[in-house]
Amino acid sequence: MQTDFRLTIDLYELTMADSYLSRGRNGTAVFDLFVRPPVPGRRFLVAAGVEAALDYLERLSFADEDRDYLRSLGIFSNNFLEYLAQFRFTGEVRAVPEGELIFPGEPILSVRAPRIEAQIVETYLLNVVNFYTLIASKAARVRLAAGFEASVADFSPRRDHGPEAAFGVAYASYLAGLDGTSNVEAGKRLGIPVIGTMAHAYVMSFPSELEAFRAFAADHPAPVLLIDTYDTLLGAQRALQVARELRAQGRALAGVRIDSGDLPTLTRKVRHMFDEAGFPEVKVLISGDLDEYRIQAFLAAGGVADGYGVGTRLGTSYDLPALGGVYKLVEDSGGPQLKMSPGKRTWPGRKQIWRRLDDDAVQDVLSLEDEAVEGGEPLLAVRMRDGVRLEEAAALSRTRERVRGWLARLPEDLRVIAADPKPEYPVEISPGLTALSRRLESARH
Amino acid sequence: MQTDFRLTIDLYELTMADSYLSRGRNGTAVFDLFVRPPVPGRRFLVAAGVEAALDYLERLSFADEDRDYLRSLGIFSNNFLEYLAQFRFTGEVRAVPEGELIFPGEPILSVRAPRIEAQIVETYLLNVVNFYTLIASKAARVRLAAGFEASVADFSPRRDHGPEAAFGVAYASYLAGLDGTSNVEAGKRLGIPVIGTMAHAYVMSFPSELEAFRAFAADHPAPVLLIDTYDTLLGAQRALQVARELRAQGRALAGVRIDSGDLPTLTRKVRHMFDEAGFPEVKVLISGDLDEYRIQAFLAAGGVADGYGVGTRLGTSYDLPALGGVYKLVEDSGGPQLKMSPGKRTWPGRKQIWRRLDDDAVQDVLSLEDEAVEGGEPLLAVRMRDGVRLEEAAALSRTRERVRGWLARLPEDLRVIAADPKPEYPVEISPGLTALSRRLESARH
Repeated sequence: MQTDFRLTIDLYELTMADSYLSRGRNGTAVFDLFVRPPVPGRRFLVAAGVEAALDYLERLSFADEDRDYLRSLGIFSNNFLEYLAQFRFTGEVRAVPEGELIFPGEPILSVRAPRIEAQIVETYLLNVVNFYTLIASKAARVRLAAGFEASVADFSPRRDHGPEAAFGVAYASYLAGLDGTSNVEAGKRLGIPVIGTMAHAYVMSFPSELEAFRAFAADHPAPVLLIDTYDTLLGAQRALQVARELRAQGRALAGVRIDSGDLPTLTRKVRHMFDEAGFPEVKVLISGDLDEYRIQAFLAAGGVADGYGVGTRLGTSYDLPALGGVYKLVEDSGGPQLKMSPGKRTWPGRKQIWRRLDDDAVQDVLSLEDEAVEGGEPLLAVRMRDGVRLEEAAALSRTRERVRGWLARLPEDLRVIAADPKPEYPVEISPGLTALSRRLESARH
Repeated sequence: MQTDFRLTIDLYELTMADSYLSRGRNGTAVFDLFVRPPVPGRRFLVAAGVEAALDYLERLSFADEDRDYLRSLGIFSNNFLEYLAQFRFTGEVRAVPEGELIFPGEPILSVRAPRIEAQIVETYLLNVVNFYTLIASKAARVRLAAGFEASVADFSPRRDHGPEAAFGVAYASYLAGLDGTSNVEAGKRLGIPVIGTMAHAYVMSFPSELEAFRAFAADHPAPVLLIDTYDTLLGAQRALQVARELRAQGRALAGVRIDSGDLPTLTRKVRHMFDEAGFPEVKVLISGDLDEYRIQAFLAAGGVADGYGVGTRLGTSYDLPALGGVYKLVEDSGGPQLKMSPGKRTWPGRKQIWRRLDDDAVQDVLSLEDEAVEGGEPLLAVRMRDGVRLEEAAALSRTRERVRGWLARLPEDLRVIAADPKPEYPVEISPGLTALSRRLESARH
């Protein structure tokens, strides 16, 4: 995870903080980070970015060069610049586990800290939780559409929003159950599988497709041949010829990839060709502007594939390129706080999420933290106290297994891929939270 | 600019490179990087990311830890791993200037290098040019909608695709003519204006809105007050009261911001209130899910604003979250190359773009590099030779001025904001390029 961009802070966080400091308004405040419902096309979310947020909180400090820059703006008090020299995050963070099933409206994390600290970290926390949750939630849908047997890989680096975003996409999509990435940087940093085949340019660099296939197969231990540079079915025949040649050498062709054309028809024909010839082990992979909708349509049209390379539409969450995550004050020294404006309700106070997960339904209750709710598992737990993580992040592979576990048992109504512009979520508000909210509302009038 | 993510390389680039090396297929190759037409909703693009691409090419090398990781995958030859230890990019890059007006189909940059080098850098080059061009092109549309007199700032960090993407959005949108960003990291690194007001949480942290306004105005040299926390028109009256108090002290209220509600009506009323009271210098700023479409609709509905804070929809290019930039082989030791597949035409050979820009029209000609084309300015120039930049990047402020210059003179038909799903571009193909393409096509049949 990165902290090189530690000043990814909206300027107003710092001007407000300066004012809080000069007025001694630095009492404990609680901010909830949640995604406003509804989220078009998302029946559920996969919470992610919690670990990146905790990393940031643990490491954030302001270097001399940061304070020199801020001083140069001429809008900050010396007192505040001195405060920043000593800054460490000293608060408490309660959060759901990285990779948890979550619904819009439920806090993904909640920060309890001196108000200035809580305010200064808002921008970065929103940035990483919004982004990683966005991509993990998209990847989970891709996994549901492709099924759990197929191999699904992130092929998005060339279209993601910068090199760091490409790394984040690899992380969040692996976490949400994909099998690997084409991104070598992510493979190296995260120890996750890296996956790759060959490009049209390679095929074109040889006098003939067959020569290109033979060369690549000779040079790579588990070759996957791209067969659609010229004519896909002719390409498949040439790949089959190479598969025979490899078998004669005691080796095997790992697979073929098709990146264009009528994929349902082409994959059926190519699958049949290899099966008939006695090569059922050769995998058929597809790619080319895929996402969960297109994979579902491909399968509905009778397409057969062992694996999918998913790029642009995964890496930019193309149908929904941002989540509306917000970070709202819910309690301060004056007690629980309520923000009300049209369409922008915030539930007051410190909270807990209680989950009941049956074979055919998920039902959550959003309650006050100290409220007794029967028959559910609490999702929010203290992850950081006095600015120190209570335990290390779980290994990514274990988080991924946990996500695959709940994803495989997800109730039918949450698995539906078809885009719902305004999904309803199985989140009930507890009596205690309802009563507190009403009390604050009527006090306002 | 970053090179920390130097292994943002699709795995297949490296497996192909290994194969090229072992076969001695490392002759000079030329790859064009361009965006496939049409681009829905974009009548023109602002080329960006060229400087980031050149930075990467100048600095790319493979550390021991990179090669150790690659060795651990068990798919690379020792020969190739040794090659990587010595790797430097030694090729030539021709490119349009950072911030140039460009149309889909025209090369933004062209790499001429030993094939292995050209192949290895593909992923990173596509990533940065796709992303920066995406955001710069979106920002230019926002500028056109808002007009050149209004102040327009990037407020997107909390919704961008990671902290580095937030930095990239600030860079690319400033380049395309915006006035600044809320992102302190970008302000510090790029020396561009940072802009900020205050948040609802600040107002809520005081017993009353008026107390919050007075406190903020006392603590900030150029206060902008957020007036929609409770009731916007009441908030405006309180802000006016603070403006009077500041004037009595010889100071001034800089502005008010409105983030919600019926913005055309509210801004008219608030503008009128301040004008009537003798405070025409107090600026009215708006924010809240703005983009070029919404700014245009706001102005069409009679809204009046001095400035706009533009967030999510700018920072994720929400209506078009990715550009289809590609990197295609156009020449190698076998001469000019042509890739043909349905809907995916590539023009062969090394090229030049010739521009004629009149008051009421832009007309480009895409030609072969050495073809004589009359009456136009060539856009592609050599920027790097033997892996070394020929000159430093232009200062960002100068690039921005140049963009604002051509943007202000853009012909009417290119300024239209309304989304065209399939724009046509004023790009003519030269006789020489047409003839070469036909010749290669017929040779194929």
